[in-house]
Amino acid sequence: MPVLRKNPVTNQWVIIATERAKRPRDYKVERQSLESSFCPFCAGNEDATPREICVYRDAAAQSAKRWNVRVVPNKYPALRVEGSLEMRGDGMYDTMEGIGAHEVIIESPDHVIDFSSLSVSEISTVLWAWRDRIVDLRKDARLKCVMIFKNQGAEAGATLEHVHSQLIALPVVPQRLQEELDGAQRYFEFRERCVFCDMLRQELESGVRIVHENAHVVAFAPFASRFPFEVWILPRRHEPWYEAGTQQIYDATADALRVVIKKLNIALDQPAFNLMLHSAPFVHENVAHYHWHIELIPKLNTVAGFEWASGFHINPTPSETAAQHLRDIEIG
Amino acid sequence: MPVLRKNPVTNQWVIIATERAKRPRDYKVERQSLESSFCPFCAGNEDATPREICVYRDAAAQSAKRWNVRVVPNKYPALRVEGSLEMRGDGMYDTMEGIGAHEVIIESPDHVIDFSSLSVSEISTVLWAWRDRIVDLRKDARLKCVMIFKNQGAEAGATLEHVHSQLIALPVVPQRLQEELDGAQRYFEFRERCVFCDMLRQELESGVRIVHENAHVVAFAPFASRFPFEVWILPRRHEPWYEAGTQQIYDATADALRVVIKKLNIALDQPAFNLMLHSAPFVHENVAHYHWHIELIPKLNTVAGFEWASGFHINPTPSETAAQHLRDIEIG
Repeated sequence: MPVLRKNPVTNQWVIIATERAKRPRDYKVERQSLESSFCPFCAGNEDATPREICVYRDAAAQSAKRWNVRVVPNKYPALRVEGSLEMRGDGMYDTMEGIGAHEVIIESPDHVIDFSSLSVSEISTVLWAWRDRIVDLRKDARLKCVMIFKNQGAEAGATLEHVHSQLIALPVVPQRLQEELDGAQRYFEFRERCVFCDMLRQELESGVRIVHENAHVVAFAPFASRFPFEVWILPRRHEPWYEAGTQQIYDATADALRVVIKKLNIALDQPAFNLMLHSAPFVHENVAHYHWHIELIPKLNTVAGFEWASGFHINPTPSETAAQHLRDIEIG
Repeated sequence: MPVLRKNPVTNQWVIIATERAKRPRDYKVERQSLESSFCPFCAGNEDATPREICVYRDAAAQSAKRWNVRVVPNKYPALRVEGSLEMRGDGMYDTMEGIGAHEVIIESPDHVIDFSSLSVSEISTVLWAWRDRIVDLRKDARLKCVMIFKNQGAEAGATLEHVHSQLIALPVVPQRLQEELDGAQRYFEFRERCVFCDMLRQELESGVRIVHENAHVVAFAPFASRFPFEVWILPRRHEPWYEAGTQQIYDATADALRVVIKKLNIALDQPAFNLMLHSAPFVHENVAHYHWHIELIPKLNTVAGFEWASGFHINPTPSETAAQHLRDIEIG
């Protein structure tokens, strides 16, 4: 059973995923190679994954007895749905049962390896699957929020190349999200406006950090980018919860994701990347001033001692330079 | 001139190191290879680095006209000493001049690539160099703290293999350190004890996470380890500032570093690692309950989207398992 352990100094939680337990020799092997030739995510290999939680089929897929998107539990989950939220002490230390959900969204029946080679409508189906899973998981009173993310490429932490995203539902609000929630709340108390809405307004006025925009969402390189070519995608309309979206919003987000990743692919030669969805947690206090968004981070440099020691990032590429490069690339 | 930019949501600063500015093609090149055959840190190549800030020579080195440890400015600094702490606004965004220091501590005249193959006395000289540089830099009223760190191996972010550590002095207290300071203060208000002293006491009593100990310092795998085989080294005696150490403390720390890294080398087959020194900042308010320490993180897994999105780490190796493996390895 996985457990959460709390750092007694900073109060930050860590997941100790004992079911993925590794001994020193496992790390030695891991450094060699990640990918075997058999892909458990390809159509026809459905037996290689746990039974699906839900599946999406359009008319064509239905008549061909195929599927478009499948959601399955992670075979090696970092957290488990079964159990109660029991806290335990061990002297000065705190432990919590590793309750939560860890799911995999298989984004295509075919062995596609780049998310941006899916069509806008295929990506939009993935975005609906994310929404539907959040709507379902928020019914579980033990859970506080859902993190959805995507690792493409081995340097970004992917262990399988077939396009997929992952979802982890947590019994606590994680630090990075809490920092954004607190910051948005602080800004609202000071200015009575959403900090993300203000950011969008300034970015659209100046234009220097804009990467792509359409009727419903805007993609830009954030002013204080931690990583070179970091891009954020925000809905124009204020909305704390991703799962409150509409077809228009998801289609527009799918368009922006496809265009931005295609631009990154051309600018940086198919970089590995992480995609992260930040959406308000399942509580209703103090989250009205949050604004959901997606963060995209191409994996270009190694995060080294200074960054780990300080939480302070050194970025050699100003966001205006990155945005201009990306803006100048035309995508059909 | 490098600048600091503040994230308007979380108030976290990022260094935009424009003097290291990179265009997309630079990232493409970087992924190929890091190391050239010429080493600017080897004795005889002193002209390849900026002029030294200080140098350490024992009697043998002096008579051989050699040196043991050299401290030089970083040739591509993330921050610069010249300038004033000017803050500028750009609409809702804040920028600060990138004032600070970025130095390199060259730890041996010979092309040694593993820190733990230096002798205890050689490592102790490095630890004195760290101390002396902090003592010197704290005279600069613009600076708030010094981060000292070491990246060994390309996977840990090293670009040169010759043993060296780096120092970055900052005009702000970085987030990770501030979180530890705040946590230590909170714990003191609640219990009137140092949280790190309490941790040491519990670790020494239970023994299950101890990796190595000597008369003055203790090395253990922290309860809520973020990374597999993470090890912390703490002085037994409460002390907020690293630079307040004595010969005994630095010798004991050198012994612990050498033993722990040798153990990691055997257990994990010479892993790349980051070493980070956490010491109280140069202010005297609310830091008396901090306790300096060194964190060691072997680079075994890729930090992926979930970790970046949440700040939440998933660690597959409980610290007791890691500590036992490391304890069982005998080092001469």
